[in-house]
Amino acid sequence: MIDVKQLIVDLNLIREKSPLVHNITNFVVMNNTANGLLAIGASPVMAHAIEEMEDMVSIASALVINMGTLSKHWVDAMLLAGKAAKARKIPVVFDPVGAGATPYRSETALIILKECKPDIIRGNASEIMSLAKSNIITKGVDSTAKSESALEMGKDLAIKTGAVIAISGKEDFITDGKNVNTVKNGSLMMPKVTGLGCTASSITGAFAAVNRDKLAAASNAMAVMGVAGELAAQKSDGPGSLQVHFLDALYNLTGEMVIKNLRQ
Amino acid sequence: MIDVKQLIVDLNLIREKSPLVHNITNFVVMNNTANGLLAIGASPVMAHAIEEMEDMVSIASALVINMGTLSKHWVDAMLLAGKAAKARKIPVVFDPVGAGATPYRSETALIILKECKPDIIRGNASEIMSLAKSNIITKGVDSTAKSESALEMGKDLAIKTGAVIAISGKEDFITDGKNVNTVKNGSLMMPKVTGLGCTASSITGAFAAVNRDKLAAASNAMAVMGVAGELAAQKSDGPGSLQVHFLDALYNLTGEMVIKNLRQ
Amino acid sequence: MIDVKQLIVDLNLIREKSPLVHNITNFVVMNNTANGLLAIGASPVMAHAIEEMEDMVSIASALVINMGTLSKHWVDAMLLAGKAAKARKIPVVFDPVGAGATPYRSETALIILKECKPDIIRGNASEIMSLAKSNIITKGVDSTAKSESALEMGKDLAIKTGAVIAISGKEDFITDGKNVNTVKNGSLMMPKVTGLGCTASSITGAFAAVNRDKLAAASNAMAVMGVAGELAAQKSDGPGSLQVHFLDALYNLTGEMVIKNLRQ
Repeated sequence: MIDVKQLIVDLNLIREKSPLVHNITNFVVMNNTANGLLAIGASPVMAHAIEEMEDMVSIASALVINMGTLSKHWVDAMLLAGKAAKARKIPVVFDPVGAGATPYRSETALIILKECKPDIIRGNASEIMSLAKSNIITKGVDSTAKSESALEMGKDLAIKTGAVIAISGKEDFITDGKNVNTVKNGSLMMPKVTGLGCTASSITGAFAAVNRDKLAAASNAMAVMGVAGELAAQKSDGPGSLQVHFLDALYNLTGEMVIKNLRQ
Repeated sequence: MIDVKQLIVDLNLIREKSPLVHNITNFVVMNNTANGLLAIGASPVMAHAIEEMEDMVSIASALVINMGTLSKHWVDAMLLAGKAAKARKIPVVFDPVGAGATPYRSETALIILKECKPDIIRGNASEIMSLAKSNIITKGVDSTAKSESALEMGKDLAIKTGAVIAISGKEDFITDGKNVNTVKNGSLMMPKVTGLGCTASSITGAFAAVNRDKLAAASNAMAVMGVAGELAAQKSDGPGSLQVHFLDALYNLTGEMVIKNLRQ
Repeated sequence: MIDVKQLIVDLNLIREKSPLVHNITNFVVMNNTANGLLAIGASPVMAHAIEEMEDMVSIASALVINMGTLSKHWVDAMLLAGKAAKARKIPVVFDPVGAGATPYRSETALIILKECKPDIIRGNASEIMSLAKSNIITKGVDSTAKSESALEMGKDLAIKTGAVIAISGKEDFITDGKNVNTVKNGSLMMPKVTGLGCTASSITGAFAAVNRDKLAAASNAMAVMGVAGELAAQKSDGPGSLQVHFLDALYNLTGEMVIKNLRQ
């Protein structure tokens, strides 16, 4: 179960401290994830140059690695940043976008797992299943599997890697291998907006920056995403307005709104 | 004439099959075009790493090459992907953004034409004229010519290359060199939103994924763009809200709305 | 004092001439800044390939260099473009995003200052203080200092570099080292939208393209940003809708609205 009181404490901490979240992410969603972090009260930075990786990590409170539009130089930067983050003991969140879609993605994901030892991994069911078991085929970057089917594999992956695993889907599951939290909020329209999954990973970075309990941080992020997304969808005519209302909802989200709306 | 019944069949096919459209596109519009593809029901993937080009193409139903922010490594990826797509016989759509603006763009466009043999080329009048005739000067990436003036050159280009040519403008023209379809929908506010042309190219990829008749696919895409854009503009106060309403309109577009609004 | 009559003349000139503004900017904001330029009536181009830098600059009316997501090849392109712009005597605007956050950024900013001799530098207080005095530490890309504290240093920087310095903040200050213009418009919600500072730099490029008085161009841009942002914020529920309304406001901004709302 998600401790909603702690969630609210952490949400307020993000707004008060505005932790710097360093993102090495993909070209498609950079704008969205930066806006998501700003809307919730954190301070985003997007940087990928080898020349500044260690310096940027040294002033950050969390690192988010997202391999949505990966290429060689970017992977080099991810590995460098990941190691620097572990050395500084700041949390590392990993979003294995499209793992399973191509061998290059699957191999890169495994290298990142091994070299950066992420604290939290957030992906859709296909991606998590691909990481857990190498013979799952993913279709591009959208999920073809249900999050329920990925839960058992997610637990295995959590135990194998020591990371908390967050699986996005109609229901979200967050597990450390033993405990499982569930978030039942959201909207069927959310997968029609690109980058909301990536935004969830970045918001996870913000929560991890203020609470070292990895299961709590990942669960709080998914809860906030689900509630804000659901409230936003209720007033949206389509994915265009959903994206706008989602940022407004994140910005205006109160503890009361979370208490009233969270279904777990 | 556009066969509206077939258009509706194809629109429904996109929503039912959700074809994977692989985009190698520019940094400015990636988010918009991914959202456009999701809104219409397709599944977008943006990927440009040499290491995964052939693998990504091998699971895609269409390839869209857009040279808006080109550079060496990206052009290499475009050529590799284009050849893989031709080998797999999946449709290739090419958007020659800014052809004519600099020699590098014009030369790159010609190399892509030669090496990738695109099935459909979509551009504004200046870009199409530049491809057809090398002495047209384009101002940046916006069109300085009218689509009417480009039509004859577009026909020549279609015959020379075997591609269907779609010319965006106040009126859109789509031609295979012999037949010409026209779409008279749209709004003068549309060119004030960056990336709607690029979105048209990606939507063309989605239609080409479900219908191998290239003239129909390109025409259907332009029709859907024009109708959705026009409906969106009617409720928009400016280009900011147009972008939002456009995605909502794509998402909610019904066959009835196309029948009622399409002017050709 | 900002000469509002001249501002309106220049705003109309942008809409009439639609000057081509060449941006070498960061991945996070490319879409926003392109849309900002389109909304105000200018014609944006985003291009960074070494192979076309000089050719693209040769057709542009202003160059905007923004180092938000810098890396080696992009810095090479910035230097090449900056020198070409100076040779052609078109205005160069520089946005030193995150200067002071890492040594790489601070060093790159100094190289750009030296090699490209920008006509106008626009940044937040932390960035301007970092350029003026190398021992200021910036937190990521958001400002930790107030614009008032940066004003004296901004004046020094203006005198040392010959550039006009625009310092964004709750109040904006624009100075050539002797004269200081102030813009008191804006909204506290504006820093919660990523890239509005970068948009200000691009809009500065548009104003500089039509008026060679650097102090006037930079001041007019900040005035238009402040007024449009404030009007947009009045009807916004959060940063998501602010971004949408902001583009609409830029598009619909009249001289009368500037006269009525500008506080300096």
